[in-house]
Amino acid sequence: MKIREEVEPADVQRVAKLVESTGFFREAEVEVAVELVRDRLEKGEASGYSFLLSDGQDRLAAYSCYGPIACTLTSFDLYWIVVHPDYQGQGMGKGILRLTEQRVAGAGGERLYVDTSQSAQYAGTRAFYERCGYRLESVLADFYGPGDGKVVYCKKLEK
Amino acid sequence: MKIREEVEPADVQRVAKLVESTGFFREAEVEVAVELVRDRLEKGEASGYSFLLSDGQDRLAAYSCYGPIACTLTSFDLYWIVVHPDYQGQGMGKGILRLTEQRVAGAGGERLYVDTSQSAQYAGTRAFYERCGYRLESVLADFYGPGDGKVVYCKKLEK
Repeated sequence: MKIREEVEPADVQRVAKLVESTGFFREAEVEVAVELVRDRLEKGEASGYSFLLSDGQDRLAAYSCYGPIACTLTSFDLYWIVVHPDYQGQGMGKGILRLTEQRVAGAGGERLYVDTSQSAQYAGTRAFYERCGYRLESVLADFYGPGDGKVVYCKKLEK
Repeated sequence: MKIREEVEPADVQRVAKLVESTGFFREAEVEVAVELVRDRLEKGEASGYSFLLSDGQDRLAAYSCYGPIACTLTSFDLYWIVVHPDYQGQGMGKGILRLTEQRVAGAGGERLYVDTSQSAQYAGTRAFYERCGYRLESVLADFYGPGDGKVVYCKKLEK
């Protein structure tokens, strides 16, 4: 798995297509993912958003987006991690997550947080984080919508 | 209590001074507060940040900053609420919070979330939210730093 960290202007479209390809996200959510890419392109490191991108044949195969959480000392947020359906089931999610954790630890991060949904659609996502050593830290009922709570996972990282 | 909602360029400095005046916030936190004002000035409503500001004699007496939480249907975040020490103890915090809740409900918000710290320094802040009808929803241990967890409160708003 070859990974690059520099975001290019073409990644705006590539990330939009990748996020859409999963069929998981609403239009407003795709827009948020794309905003973070634009922010990185405009402001560089000062954006607070870092990326790991894995290029597939003619599109993005997977990516993660992470960064330090403002007003915390050593907590980081995993904002996005997405694997294209054609590339799922090959350990790519696990691989890119492990690399993300290494980058976060290298940047002084001690805790990596990830938010996801409590809904049935995200059962696979939650199981994925649990397999990767993430611990359920809290649940906010009805956060995303009626019956759709927010689940917060956290992993303490090795220094 | 006279309240205005339009942010002016001079509010960048005014908000910085107000937030500093409490002695509660680190420099990086003051910078975050100011960033939201700048964002509002630059992008207007599209910034996602709304403000309620109460002018004192020759400075800002209090303000709140709130907005819809991306990817949620009807959840809003209370990003900041600060009362200048010279104006505390007069019900101003309660007043500006109630007005904020009315604005959020008017914009379709059904739940207002507020994050604060678990540390002893914030005992008064937590008591304030509890008095105002906020319910403790979750605690993330060590989120801000060692021994300094994040506490999330939420209030369901009347339509």
